[in-house]
Amino acid sequence: MLNRPQSNPQLNAKGELTHLLSIDGLPREALIRILDTASSFLEISDRDVKKVPLLRGKSVFNLFFENSTRTRTTFEIAAKRLSADVINLDVARSSTAKGETLLDTVDNLVAMHADMLVVRHAASGTPYLIVDHLQRIGRADVHVVNAGDGRHAHPTQGLLDMYTIRHYKKDFSGLTVAIVGDILHSRVARSDIHALNTLGAGEVRAVGPQTLLPTAIEKMGVRVCMDLQTGLKDCDVVIMLRLQNERMNGALLPSAREYFRCYGLTPRALALAKPDAIVMHPGPMNRGVEIDSLVADGPQAVILPQVTFGIAVRMAVLSILAGN
Amino acid sequence: MLNRPQSNPQLNAKGELTHLLSIDGLPREALIRILDTASSFLEISDRDVKKVPLLRGKSVFNLFFENSTRTRTTFEIAAKRLSADVINLDVARSSTAKGETLLDTVDNLVAMHADMLVVRHAASGTPYLIVDHLQRIGRADVHVVNAGDGRHAHPTQGLLDMYTIRHYKKDFSGLTVAIVGDILHSRVARSDIHALNTLGAGEVRAVGPQTLLPTAIEKMGVRVCMDLQTGLKDCDVVIMLRLQNERMNGALLPSAREYFRCYGLTPRALALAKPDAIVMHPGPMNRGVEIDSLVADGPQAVILPQVTFGIAVRMAVLSILAGN
Amino acid sequence: MLNRPQSNPQLNAKGELTHLLSIDGLPREALIRILDTASSFLEISDRDVKKVPLLRGKSVFNLFFENSTRTRTTFEIAAKRLSADVINLDVARSSTAKGETLLDTVDNLVAMHADMLVVRHAASGTPYLIVDHLQRIGRADVHVVNAGDGRHAHPTQGLLDMYTIRHYKKDFSGLTVAIVGDILHSRVARSDIHALNTLGAGEVRAVGPQTLLPTAIEKMGVRVCMDLQTGLKDCDVVIMLRLQNERMNGALLPSAREYFRCYGLTPRALALAKPDAIVMHPGPMNRGVEIDSLVADGPQAVILPQVTFGIAVRMAVLSILAGN
Repeated sequence: MLNRPQSNPQLNAKGELTHLLSIDGLPREALIRILDTASSFLEISDRDVKKVPLLRGKSVFNLFFENSTRTRTTFEIAAKRLSADVINLDVARSSTAKGETLLDTVDNLVAMHADMLVVRHAASGTPYLIVDHLQRIGRADVHVVNAGDGRHAHPTQGLLDMYTIRHYKKDFSGLTVAIVGDILHSRVARSDIHALNTLGAGEVRAVGPQTLLPTAIEKMGVRVCMDLQTGLKDCDVVIMLRLQNERMNGALLPSAREYFRCYGLTPRALALAKPDAIVMHPGPMNRGVEIDSLVADGPQAVILPQVTFGIAVRMAVLSILAGN
Repeated sequence: MLNRPQSNPQLNAKGELTHLLSIDGLPREALIRILDTASSFLEISDRDVKKVPLLRGKSVFNLFFENSTRTRTTFEIAAKRLSADVINLDVARSSTAKGETLLDTVDNLVAMHADMLVVRHAASGTPYLIVDHLQRIGRADVHVVNAGDGRHAHPTQGLLDMYTIRHYKKDFSGLTVAIVGDILHSRVARSDIHALNTLGAGEVRAVGPQTLLPTAIEKMGVRVCMDLQTGLKDCDVVIMLRLQNERMNGALLPSAREYFRCYGLTPRALALAKPDAIVMHPGPMNRGVEIDSLVADGPQAVILPQVTFGIAVRMAVLSILAGN
Repeated sequence: MLNRPQSNPQLNAKGELTHLLSIDGLPREALIRILDTASSFLEISDRDVKKVPLLRGKSVFNLFFENSTRTRTTFEIAAKRLSADVINLDVARSSTAKGETLLDTVDNLVAMHADMLVVRHAASGTPYLIVDHLQRIGRADVHVVNAGDGRHAHPTQGLLDMYTIRHYKKDFSGLTVAIVGDILHSRVARSDIHALNTLGAGEVRAVGPQTLLPTAIEKMGVRVCMDLQTGLKDCDVVIMLRLQNERMNGALLPSAREYFRCYGLTPRALALAKPDAIVMHPGPMNRGVEIDSLVADGPQAVILPQVTFGIAVRMAVLSILAGN
């Protein structure tokens, strides 16, 4: 991660949200404001005409250096339902390939009068680098949304997870939340942990094999549980993480079957949680690897509502940034 | 193909069209209604402002598991001229690649408040599988259009072919229609045969080498002709099928040159048909393989009008589904 | 390049611009009209709602046979800010791959009621071929914009370069313009030279190593300078060309380092030009190959304003073609 200045690059001089880079460093009120705004947008997607003119004539660029059809699509839908013009840049196959630097690409988009850059990059800190650059060239009017940077952060996923928890559990205080799986490589886990701490969740547990837990993760304010049984015991919310196939071939894990036996969420394992516990997953799911289909399709799963809330949350983020 | 329930999954309880999966099973009136609606849309594409607000605020997803720029583009244009928001999913490079199941992808799009899924898939029956699933989860408000599934069906192509024939020949009764080429692998041929039978064409002929004719095709109500001369004799409509290059390398055909000599539509062969016979082709054409350029560019070819009618037919299908 | 008819295929019978194929052959008034129209569009991209309804309901197809995210994006933005429906055809992966001819693809887009085709192709003359074909089939109402054809022309780049020069230098007469680099392979250089000659620039210099200068380039009305020092001496405008990496591996150039030492634009080299000389580059830049970062980011560089003007120029071209 980059060396960031003391001041919060996500907020402008008036303390308003001007970029969304990370949940870490977001004041509680900013977080709550996004969730409340998302609430009001949720209804729009249920209308016959799913469109409001809030971002009409704005140019939103999807700048995905890492392929992610899922996340790109949700931002594209969110922006289109706000009436923005959306331009998808297939960056992997473009100017970067021609040797152009990242910041030259950004400068070009700014020169094209971009209003928003939605950035996904394999390197942690890339959106910060872009924001630093925008500040240096005096273009704070261009807003950056981090759509996932390396292992660092995936703030809109974190926000939609919080929206989901608030929707089903109303209040964060007193909640026990278990985040299960490959926490080491997960930007989702990091964003969720920061959000849960900011919103005052009772206990956050990081559950996974030692090889997939970051060292010193306790310092993030979580309780580490290396076995699933302890991790799930009496919890209110279970957030399962996607196990990336590439981890399987490395030295980190013996096999998918072994992983499922120890950390896969089966009905039997879930029975350890509170009876009204909800099960979340950022998708796409590996059925039979980190989650049993009986759970994924069961009554406690709120995985598809997460997707619905995700559109509303992204509409909220885009419209708040455009308004500030 | 999947085992389908008795009732027609394309129609809702009131007998209205709610998905377009196959021409097989479509009542004559549903077919005629689409053609008549297309007629009224044809004029829109000739206007200065080629746009009507019928699908404003609707989200149409192009879900192409098989690459087809041509068909995807026609659906994209049709949806945009109806003012819908169109989202192209590059599924080949996306979540499926990440191991997500087809139905999880569908569930996600439904959770994003998709109104229509336009589906192309290499496996016959995929759109049926999706519709079954939508019924199971109680989301009959999401409409599915089959944009080609394996060898099974390509109903919008069938419909645009019928539109074309009706445009030039007015009445189906008494017409002799020859479908020429690789009928074995052709979803277009199957859709055309069903449509011609439903609309009461006089005689439908399946013309091609034995290796490219499905066994028991006579049961579909066609006359089999293994030589082109018999097949074209006195017919009113010639529908040439595209010969896929990959057939050439297999055991099914000796060579492209041989194929052209026996089944290629030359002016000499076409002279066997009625003097006012029309020549159709679903595109993209292999000039010099299944069709001679003299015919493709000749006065009897209506291959480009097919494309024009195709936009109107797809606009009709999308708007009818949205209306029901 | 193709054998073109005597008459100018870019102009209709009334002498109005109906296609934009090349700056060569464009009357001075047509050029000036585009620049003046671009002036009025520049302001739109600064508005809160960056959109005018001039091309509402028009279908603009980006037909890029050669990959160029940058240029495609600028046309996409320009068309969307004019409210057109834009359809990106990924031609490299589509029907052409299926063996369809170029003109069959064009015929299909015409049949879909395309209003504009923005064409990029590796073969010089392709847009002319398309225009010839459109004339032959009597469809002069479909407009073609050349977005770069082989080594031949890149007229919108030429126009935006002229816009930039006029913006900073007001008048072309008396200006000395140095075009530096790989002129042999550069369609940008050819378009700039024609434009500068038409607009009456004082002196145009072609600067580069002999292996990268076309034979008989003097006939285009330029002064050839084989060393950078002579080339830059007292000039008002420096247009640096992108050095394509593939030239490096061939017999044309010893190495990137060698090239930079001889033809790279460093502050020291730039000091030979007039103190108020501007530095231009079509992008994407190879920093440290053809241009030093100190110059690229220095006060004389107008490379990013070029990008901004490029959107306005493309909006002007599309709207003028649509109006005629």
